[in-house]
Amino acid sequence: MRIAELGRRSGVPVPTIKYYLREGLLPAGELTSPNQARYTEDHLRRLRLVRAMVELGGLSIAAVRDVLGALDDPEKSLHKAMGTISAAMAPPDLDASDEAAREVARAFVERQGWTPRPDSYAFKALVAVLTTARDVGHERFTGVLDAYARACVPLAEADLDYALGADSEDEALENVVVGTVLGDAAMAAIRAIARRETSERRKDTGSPPNPEPDC
Amino acid sequence: MRIAELGRRSGVPVPTIKYYLREGLLPAGELTSPNQARYTEDHLRRLRLVRAMVELGGLSIAAVRDVLGALDDPEKSLHKAMGTISAAMAPPDLDASDEAAREVARAFVERQGWTPRPDSYAFKALVAVLTTARDVGHERFTGVLDAYARACVPLAEADLDYALGADSEDEALENVVVGTVLGDAAMAAIRAIARRETSERRKDTGSPPNPEPDC
Repeated sequence: MRIAELGRRSGVPVPTIKYYLREGLLPAGELTSPNQARYTEDHLRRLRLVRAMVELGGLSIAAVRDVLGALDDPEKSLHKAMGTISAAMAPPDLDASDEAAREVARAFVERQGWTPRPDSYAFKALVAVLTTARDVGHERFTGVLDAYARACVPLAEADLDYALGADSEDEALENVVVGTVLGDAAMAAIRAIARRETSERRKDTGSPPNPEPDC
Repeated sequence: MRIAELGRRSGVPVPTIKYYLREGLLPAGELTSPNQARYTEDHLRRLRLVRAMVELGGLSIAAVRDVLGALDDPEKSLHKAMGTISAAMAPPDLDASDEAAREVARAFVERQGWTPRPDSYAFKALVAVLTTARDVGHERFTGVLDAYARACVPLAEADLDYALGADSEDEALENVVVGTVLGDAAMAAIRAIARRETSERRKDTGSPPNPEPDC
């Protein structure tokens, strides 16, 4: 297909597609004349994936390039892809240097029986959250995290079932990326809906949604 | 305290504090001379909250202003604050207009026994996720969402317990904001750690982490 059709079918404006081509996020099309190229269904699929990462995941162009590199890596693996996508989704200037917060994070993962690498982005992201919690005077928030961890185990199983329910390794890796990007966005939305419903229900059963100053 | 001390104690550079003051994210200090002002512990607390929203939550200045408005609203309520923070955390250009995706979202919330307002940001964010899932050829991803919903119920209980475990209504509202901003960041980090651990465990017990092309 021509670039105009690629734009129409993906919903991505043609100048944006040209930008992605220049930035190497999309492989060049097959030249059919000196200034015209033909694109395939593979281009469309890749373009949609880039769009999901940029629009829903809020990833920078550099971060998208890293993730696509992991997908195209000849020595790719599910594990490597998970690490790359975690790194790409993490805020760019994570501060995980606080020793006290690292200690709280270490104790937390140990309680779950987990052994993440201390230099992995996911662990560093957790340390950054704990550092901020303390800095904003909400150290008590760390007490909620064990409930989060319990909820995350069945989620991880569901995510992995999704990733592995693929017909090929390429597809499994794409599933990891999609599952993480869409999954984080979906979780935020569903958490917000569930919180509101739970608050409504507590109100209906008489538990005050707004505590009195003395309770 | 002087602005320099406010900067030192919050870790926010003084020019950034001045920018927040100009943008109205931080109330003016008490003038002690024509060009010197004094700041209080309340300023420090508010500044740290702004920093958490900007740095960890990735909120725009306009979104932070909306959330602070909800905290300072004389007719504030926990419910209103939840709606405002959901709106502020949602991507700015949510496309929730797709009728087929809205229908999938409606069926999903109905299955959970939930009744969110269709014009709430959380519901619209869910529709946007479902729209993207279909656009990128991952319609099957919607099948994972029931597992997400089941995980979100205990999370919502934990979040509300955190919000309501406050000494005052002001504090409860701040807990909602902190719980959402830190909570979404913490969930993303913990999910990534749990996914990796689960993948390791499956590998150890013989389930292949990378499926063969023919399975």
